[in-house]
Amino acid sequence: MPNIVHRIGIRAPISTVYAAVSTIEGIAGWWTRDTSGESRLGGSIQVHFRTPSREEIGKMGFELSKLDVNKEVHWHFTSGPEEWLGTDVTFSLSQEGDCTLILFGHRNWREEVEFMAHCSMKWATFLLSLKLQAEAGKGKPAPDDMKIDNWN
Amino acid sequence: MPNIVHRIGIRAPISTVYAAVSTIEGIAGWWTRDTSGESRLGGSIQVHFRTPSREEIGKMGFELSKLDVNKEVHWHFTSGPEEWLGTDVTFSLSQEGDCTLILFGHRNWREEVEFMAHCSMKWATFLLSLKLQAEAGKGKPAPDDMKIDNWN
Repeated sequence: MPNIVHRIGIRAPISTVYAAVSTIEGIAGWWTRDTSGESRLGGSIQVHFRTPSREEIGKMGFELSKLDVNKEVHWHFTSGPEEWLGTDVTFSLSQEGDCTLILFGHRNWREEVEFMAHCSMKWATFLLSLKLQAEAGKGKPAPDDMKIDNWN
Repeated sequence: MPNIVHRIGIRAPISTVYAAVSTIEGIAGWWTRDTSGESRLGGSIQVHFRTPSREEIGKMGFELSKLDVNKEVHWHFTSGPEEWLGTDVTFSLSQEGDCTLILFGHRNWREEVEFMAHCSMKWATFLLSLKLQAEAGKGKPAPDDMKIDNWN
């Protein structure tokens, strides 16, 4: 099945990056401010995307299906765009020197549709936002996210 | 075979975006300043990547294997990193309103290796550089490209 994969290096402790992808406050700091739910293994998390004027443009729900401290976090999508249902977002963390590496995946798309290409580009900008948040204390989560095409 | 795909929208005429991906001057404005060769169908183009102090960190060669004006451009890689040999970079252009859309692909990787994840993230930043170049007249080609991990 088609996968989106990205690799990014962050000059911050691995525990900071782990918190950024496994806690409500962490995710709200780089993906979307409107994040809520329970950040425990099996917990459900809901995210909403809105325009700056609060109009909703998307929402998703996922389960924290794997939490291996400072190593691996998996999100299993249970609601949202039809193409996302059953897909998994995976963060594999490792350390090399002063760099925390994220090997990111958004896996198990049914088809390589144009929306997947849009999401690949958006994930790249959100990972840059995560890097900013972890290195400089301030990410660019929605609704202040970078707009990359005529969809979002 | 695994593919990298991205979608980006650019507020510039489609002819500007076509020139950016099909001519030596265009490519030098967003990917790497050190671009040379012949921008005709079947022509060979060489690109070098260097550090700001001119140390070479990579080079590739590709053939312009498809040129369909304002629609489609394909690059077929004939030299460079072993993983890139035989892969194809594709730009499919279209217009929606005042937006020129690029559906980008780097296709036919043999395996979904970690280097592919690195390249996916780098391509995203280079497409943002192309967007800057086409919209504001100034991209961020190597050696002034955004560094995204401990590899480049």
